[in-house]
Order: sequence, then C-alpha cells, then structure tokens
Amino acid sequence: MDIRPRDTDSDWRRRAYSVIFESDTPAGRAFDIAVLVAIVLSVVAVMLESVQRINQQFGAVLRAVEWFFTGLFLLEYIARLVVVRRPLTYAFSLLGIIDFMAIVPTLATLVLAGSRYLLVIRTLRLLRVFRIFKLGRFVGEGEFIVTALKASRFKILVFLTAVLTLVTVVGTLLYVVEGGQNGFTSIPKSIYWAVVTVTTVGYGDISPVTVLGQTLASILMILGYAIIAVPTGIVSAQMASPRATAAPTYKQVICHVCQATDHRPEADYCWRCGEKL
Amino acid sequence: MDIRPRDTDSDWRRRAYSVIFESDTPAGRAFDIAVLVAIVLSVVAVMLESVQRINQQFGAVLRAVEWFFTGLFLLEYIARLVVVRRPLTYAFSLLGIIDFMAIVPTLATLVLAGSRYLLVIRTLRLLRVFRIFKLGRFVGEGEFIVTALKASRFKILVFLTAVLTLVTVVGTLLYVVEGGQNGFTSIPKSIYWAVVTVTTVGYGDISPVTVLGQTLASILMILGYAIIAVPTGIVSAQMASPRATAAPTYKQVICHVCQATDHRPEADYCWRCGEKL
Amino acid sequence: MDIRPRDTDSDWRRRAYSVIFESDTPAGRAFDIAVLVAIVLSVVAVMLESVQRINQQFGAVLRAVEWFFTGLFLLEYIARLVVVRRPLTYAFSLLGIIDFMAIVPTLATLVLAGSRYLLVIRTLRLLRVFRIFKLGRFVGEGEFIVTALKASRFKILVFLTAVLTLVTVVGTLLYVVEGGQNGFTSIPKSIYWAVVTVTTVGYGDISPVTVLGQTLASILMILGYAIIAVPTGIVSAQMASPRATAAPTYKQVICHVCQATDHRPEADYCWRCGEKL
Amino acid sequence: MDIRPRDTDSDWRRRAYSVIFESDTPAGRAFDIAVLVAIVLSVVAVMLESVQRINQQFGAVLRAVEWFFTGLFLLEYIARLVVVRRPLTYAFSLLGIIDFMAIVPTLATLVLAGSRYLLVIRTLRLLRVFRIFKLGRFVGEGEFIVTALKASRFKILVFLTAVLTLVTVVGTLLYVVEGGQNGFTSIPKSIYWAVVTVTTVGYGDISPVTVLGQTLASILMILGYAIIAVPTGIVSAQMASPRATAAPTYKQVICHVCQATDHRPEADYCWRCGEKL
Repeated sequence: MDIRPRDTDSDWRRRAYSVIFESDTPAGRAFDIAVLVAIVLSVVAVMLESVQRINQQFGAVLRAVEWFFTGLFLLEYIARLVVVRRPLTYAFSLLGIIDFMAIVPTLATLVLAGSRYLLVIRTLRLLRVFRIFKLGRFVGEGEFIVTALKASRFKILVFLTAVLTLVTVVGTLLYVVEGGQNGFTSIPKSIYWAVVTVTTVGYGDISPVTVLGQTLASILMILGYAIIAVPTGIVSAQMASPRATAAPTYKQVICHVCQATDHRPEADYCWRCGEKL
Repeated sequence: MDIRPRDTDSDWRRRAYSVIFESDTPAGRAFDIAVLVAIVLSVVAVMLESVQRINQQFGAVLRAVEWFFTGLFLLEYIARLVVVRRPLTYAFSLLGIIDFMAIVPTLATLVLAGSRYLLVIRTLRLLRVFRIFKLGRFVGEGEFIVTALKASRFKILVFLTAVLTLVTVVGTLLYVVEGGQNGFTSIPKSIYWAVVTVTTVGYGDISPVTVLGQTLASILMILGYAIIAVPTGIVSAQMASPRATAAPTYKQVICHVCQATDHRPEADYCWRCGEKL
Repeated sequence: MDIRPRDTDSDWRRRAYSVIFESDTPAGRAFDIAVLVAIVLSVVAVMLESVQRINQQFGAVLRAVEWFFTGLFLLEYIARLVVVRRPLTYAFSLLGIIDFMAIVPTLATLVLAGSRYLLVIRTLRLLRVFRIFKLGRFVGEGEFIVTALKASRFKILVFLTAVLTLVTVVGTLLYVVEGGQNGFTSIPKSIYWAVVTVTTVGYGDISPVTVLGQTLASILMILGYAIIAVPTGIVSAQMASPRATAAPTYKQVICHVCQATDHRPEADYCWRCGEKL
Repeated sequence: MDIRPRDTDSDWRRRAYSVIFESDTPAGRAFDIAVLVAIVLSVVAVMLESVQRINQQFGAVLRAVEWFFTGLFLLEYIARLVVVRRPLTYAFSLLGIIDFMAIVPTLATLVLAGSRYLLVIRTLRLLRVFRIFKLGRFVGEGEFIVTALKASRFKILVFLTAVLTLVTVVGTLLYVVEGGQNGFTSIPKSIYWAVVTVTTVGYGDISPVTVLGQTLASILMILGYAIIAVPTGIVSAQMASPRATAAPTYKQVICHVCQATDHRPEADYCWRCGEKL
C-alpha cells in the first residue's frame, strides 16, 4: 500500500516525507547520509562496548552514546510515523519493524538487564545503506547485480538443493565411517563438517582421521572445488549474456488476426497465420 | 527397458502408475511431494536419533517414527512393484535398489543391532528431489546446468587428471621433505594433505613445518588458486556460449519463395513474405 | 604537475631524466631493471635478517648489505631530486615518498634501535615492478586487467558493501549466540571470524561450538560460497565484453565504390576494391 | 632435433618406434596404456610401502614388486634408446631424463639405503598420461585448455607478480605487527602465512592474535577473495572469446609495396596503399 502523503495533504508534510523517506532531493540525501552516519557510529559504540577492556574503561561514556543515539532514532521513528499517510502500514513493513527494533533493546535494558543482546538488530539498519545507493552511479550497478542474481535464481536454487543433498549424504557417510571418537559425534555435526569442507572453508575443528574418512573427504573436496564452478559459471554467463543488457529480443507487436506475439524484430508478417503485421 | 504398463492394461493400473511414477498430473505431483516430505521427515528423525542427548530423551519416539516411515516406504515399494509392467526391471534399477535399501536397515535391526548405520542409504532417496524438479520452471534450469556440465565433461576430466597428478607428485615430495615427525606419516596421507591444500580447504590437521616444505606448499597453494580458474572458465564459457542457451533457436527450413531463414521453431508461415513454409 | 625537464634545459639533464624516470630507451630500461634487482636483493637481505638463526650467523654481513643498498638508494634519490624540473612535486608524490621512506629506516637505526621495523616500507618499492611492465608485451595485458577492474569498480564497491554488512550482522549474531567462552569474546573479534569464514579462509582459531552457532555458520559459508560467484561474474563479464577488447574494431565508413564495410581503423584504402576511402 | 628413425632405416625399427613413441596405431596405444598401468601400479606400491603398518606386513612383497617394475622400466628405457635415431638427444630430453630417473633410485638402494626417497621422481612419469590424451576426443579438449592458458600467460604473469608483491608487503607488515611470540617468527614465515591466507587455504597453524593484525588479515582476506576473480575472469573470457576457437583473424600476407600486414581474411587489396595483394 502506498504510504506517501496525498497530493491534497499539507505542504510541510509532503516536504517532510520527501526529506525523510526519499533521497532524490539534496535535503533528502543529506538526511539519509546523516541517519547512515548515526547508524554506523551507534553500531561502532555497541561493538566497542562488547570489548571487555574498553567496556571497563569507557563503559559509562559508551552507554551514554547508546542512549543518545537511541533518543535520536526514537525521534526519527516518531517523525516517520507522523509523516506517512498510513502509519500502521509503515510500522508493520519490514523496514518499519527494523527501525522499531533498533530502539527497543536499549529501552528494554531498564526492565531486563540481558536484553542489550538484542541490539544486534540495530546492525540490520545498515541495510539502509542500499537505499542511498539508489542515487547516482550506483543505481545501475546495484540493479545489474540484483538482476543477474534474480535471473539466475532458479539455477542457483537447483544448485543449492544439489549441494544440500550432497552434504547430507556425505555427512551421514562420515558419521558412520569416523564415529564420535573422531569428532563426528552426530549426523547434524557431520553435515556441518561437510558444509565446512565443501565450501572449502576448512576450520579443522573436525577433520577425518581414518583412511576411508580421509579418502571420502578428498573426493568431497575435489567435488566442492569443481562445484564452485557452477554458480560462478551461472552468474558469469548471466552477466555476460546480451539479454542482460538488451531486453526486447522480439517485436513488441501482437498479430491482430491470431493474437500471436514474439515476432522476430524484422518480421513483416505473422509467423503463425501469415497475416501482415 | 520400458516399465510403463501396456496400453492394453487395466485402467486403474495405468492411472496408479501415472500417480506413483510420473509427476505431470496433479495427483502424481502430490504423491511425489508427499514421498519427498516423508523422506525429509524420516531423515530428520534419523539425524536427531544420532544426537546422543536427544536420543536419551526421545529415543523411543524417534524409533517409533522410524518404524512408521519404514512401514510407509515398504507399502510404497510394494505399490511400485505391483504397478509396473516388469517388476524385476524396476527392482534392479538404480532407483529401485535405493528404494529397497531405504527399508532394509530398519528391518535388519531386528536381527543385527549395528545395522542401523545402513540407514545412511535412505538419505540417498533425497535424490528423488530432482525428479520433482522435472516440473515447471525447474526443467529448463536443471537441464541447463546438466547440459553445460555434460558438454564440458571431457575438459573437466582432463582437468581432474592434471590435478590428481599434481597432488600425487607434490604429496610425495612433501612426504620426503617433511617426513613422519611433522604429520606426513605416509604418501597416501601426504596426498590427502595435498588435496586439502590445492582445493584451498586447509584444515590445518597436517601442515608443513620445514622451510622447504612451506615453500613447496606456498607454490602448491598459488597453483591451486590459479587452477580453480580453469574449471570455472570451462563452465562459464560453456554456459555463456550461444549453443548452451538454445540449440535449435530457429526452424531449420528455408522459405521457398524469398529464401528467408531463421524462422521461429513453431512458425508455419515465413516472417518475411508471409508464404506458408 | 609535469616534473619532466623543459625542452630548453641542458641536454645532459634531459638525457639523465629519460634514463632515471623513463624506460623506453635501452639505458632507461637497464636502469629500471638495476633498481629492481637492488630492491629485490635488499628486501631479501631484510627478510633473511629477520630469521633468527641466520641473523646470529650472518648478522654483520646482512647489516653491511643493508647499509650498502641504503647508500645506493640515497644516491638514486638525490639523482632523482636533481634531475626533475620540480623537486618538491616529486618529493611529495606517492612514489617520491616511498623512495624516501626506503632510505630513512636504516639511517634512523643510528638514533633509535627499534626503527628497523620501518624497513617494511622498502618492500613497497617492489611496486615499481609495474613501471617496468610498461615495456613490451606487458603494457597491454596489465592495462587490460586494470581497465577491467576500473570498469567494474562501482559493481565491486556495491558488492563489498554488501559483504561488509553481511559480516557485521552475522558476526554480531554469533557473538550473541556463542559468547566469550567459545572464543567470540567481542563483536569486532566475531566480525573477524565472519570475514575468515565468508572468504572461505577458515583458520579454525575461532569456530562455533553450539548447534545454533554452527547452523548460522553453515548458512554463512554457503552464502560466501555462492557470493564469490558475484565478483568473478562481474570481472569475467567485463573481460569477455567486446568493449573490453577493443571498442572501434572497424572504421565506421562505407566504400563509395563497392559498399564494403568493416575496414581496419587505420585503413586509407578499401580492402575489397582498393579505392581510396 | 628429430629423434624419429630415417625413412631409409630398417622396417622393424620404424615400426618399433611407432609402437614405443607414438600412439596413433592400435599397437602404439596399447603400449602406452600398458606403460601407464605399470607406472600407476609401481607408484601405488611405493605409496603402500610408505605406510608403516603395511610395510611391516607386506614389505618383502612390495619390494619385490618394486624390483619387478624397475626391471620392466629398465627394459623399456633400453628399447627407447635402441629405437631412436639419436639416443643422446632422447637421453637428455626432459622425458628421457624422467624415464631414466624412474629406474635409478631402486638400483641406488643397493649402494645407499636412503636413496629410496628419490622414487618420488617416478611419480612424474604419470605426466605421460597426457601423451595418451593425444588420442581421440581428448586432443581438442586438452589443447583447448592449454591454448586458453597460453593465450592468458602474460595476464597471469602480471597477476602473479601483483599477488607476490601483495603477500611480501602484507607478510612483512604482519611480522612487524604480530612478532615472534604469535608465530610470525620471521619475514619468510610471515610471507608463507600471507600466501596461506590470500589463497583462502587458511591452515590456522599461524594466525594473527592482535587487533591490528586481525584487521590487516581481514583486509588481506577480502582482497584475496576479490582477487581470485581476476585469474578466473581472464581464463573465462579467453575461453569464451571467439578467437579461442577461430585463430586466423588476419590474412597471413605482407603487402609487397608498403609491407603492411594484418589484412582482413577476405581482403584482395592492401588496406594501406591500395595495391593488389
């Protein structure tokens, strides 16, 4: 649903909306960048607070910073609610919920001490960064990547299912072969190991010890090594394909006799009924 | 050999076959999805049973679930045998054997306690997932990947042979250079290490300690890093090649009036002069 | 600003400049290669000095070598200052500063013992290697890579931002899930872990222990595994694009006699009929 | 130099040469495959001998197998020497030396016990595998990969130099930042660590501990992650490029008037001076 103020709404509201929610005016862009800077600073403060040594020395300052930014974000959240046409639609949209969750944890610490952990949600506001990318050169580039990924989404899904089946089967096999005493204590843990291996991460927290286990692991690794060619090939081919750049392969005309579409660009006659286009 | 019922077979049998073995009718699709869900649930139950803590608490329930699904799969297996034209052909086909092996381990636990380990085979039934992919959008995408891989299979084989020779030579070299006291206790183990390294997995369970060993390992790593470009390049090039997208994009016919070619595959009339093809 | 000597400058200066700063004459090329060899030798000496065992035996020799090369580089630096039109412009350019920093650490050891560590800066002079690449076959190839990377720089920036947001969010999540007792002692350290994981490096110095942590890590790994397809796809597509190889492959002119097109860019005569274009 | 027998040589010699050195006759192919099988079997025997437990039980048998194959390879080597036109040319060619080195280590054990380690050289004979690839379908595919790699060799060299400079600079930096107590005991070892990291192998035998070190390592990892796109892009683009398939872009003729080259394949007239080619 459209949350933009109506054209009949007061002028200040339409202007405030464009500043807060849009970023194609200088003021709107400045607002977005200011919010972005505030998010980064507040996230950095949360990060530093998590470092024990820093927390012991500057804990009070960092908590003050936390409250300051929470206040700012609260004001921003209220402004957003006031300015939109349908406050509830915004409040229950994904971005609206993230905006809300960025405030709650700090407030909740008044009641519940451990709730600070929920501050992790504020980090998600960093995703707003992509909003600002809508401007200037980044539009095309970002969209290019997203389009290529979208066009490949079925291929990637098929690929992911194949990988998941592979790690399930190989993980279970190594659970049977290696057993608990070598770290493969359960099938889920063995599947975790298979994921660590097939993606070539290889922590080494669990690794096969028996000869059969190492042989199976070697096969899995070489498979994983070869398999990575598939998503890369998919995305590369998608990005390199002329369709990725030029869309209309077919003439945008419908035969007035048989309603056939998808004519060749140079076609003068319908391919289905032979009628002149 | 064809296992489909003959056209002269009774109606219910032909219908049952289409439900159980095919998936282009709504009923067939529903059956496939039901089997898929049952496989996933039974595999999840086996997985949970392998987690010691869960096994101690819910072991009885999980074993009941295991027997329930084994019963279901037994019924399904019998139904498959009854419905096909040649039961033996099905029973000894790859999918038939996997279907059979998915039932046996649970039954075998009555005689032999340790046989539960063979339940790993049931996970292979997950491969049935790809059967269902035959439907809808996934056909083309799955086939696209398989076609690209098939077309590159000789290149990939050459590549794999080169990698295997490389890991054998480098693995043996490091066995000589590092020796047993640094973890390289035998040539097969050193080859395992070389595979772990060249695929960039790098567990770290074995790693070179001497200067010469680390130098050789560095060269192997950079080679492995560069080598990964080869399978990726092969698959990318294959997928990006115009042949990969669609072989017969155009009808292989020339208009006898205007000699125009490149007609759409379904075209009945020439797109240039409107003549019947 | 142009630092080349004026055309009205003395002849020896213009010649010295071409030898020291340029590499398209035999003398200039020889000078560049000599400097390159000196850099490599001096860097190797610094490296060997850092190996304790070698330092104990050959420390005196290596320090002598260090002083010898420092003297050479000092002479070279002075020559560069003398020869250019604007010494200050050179002295404050990036390459000028690196050249200067390659001398200072050794001299500074006279005053401050620990300053040898700054010798690391000399390694940066290796970047001069790329100057010499300007010659012969390497020009085109090096430029090809740089051009492809430049053309993709916005796409790569968008990609990097996405990766950074991902590691921040997932790193924070694992800090909350795993906590300090499993090695995730602070959010920055958890983000370091997320980078180690998403790039598939996987040291294993920190790795998740809890079931939830391992599940999240598995998702991150598969994401990282799929994500690597994006930069690869971007660069591959860029390099494969016809614009990357050569924009105006053919002269945009049609022969007025035989209507032939596709002439070479420098062609003055039609390749088919020999008519002047 | 040509080592093939002269046309005037005796018939049996020419036939023996074609069997032993070539593989385009059925007999030649059979000989090559027999040698290949013998190499694989003898290498497997050497591998098994390196496994302590197997060595204790079957040591005598394996050593007998070793002597048997050494005898075979000796006969083969002599046959090769007899059959060629210039025995010395063969003996000092790369393949000739490898063939010779595959025999020596076993013989040398009679004099020197430890010389068995040199058996590693026999593994190099596996490279002969590629000779057989010359047959059938593999010719084209193998050549395709080699051609693509050759065409990219300058790009790959530039890329490797960049990577080597990067690991030298970053390795030295981490030596300074982390120091010996965290495992970075010398600059060469730190460079080894940088290679392990930038190639995303990540053993974890050495890993940064300080905050600054981990930050620098993170940057290196993300660089390494992005950098892998370059060789992949190079090879993909090379393989996908139409030139990879069709070579002669230009007519191999020089204008006898103006010495211009690089004429279009169909050109009848020089593009520079208009003279008939």
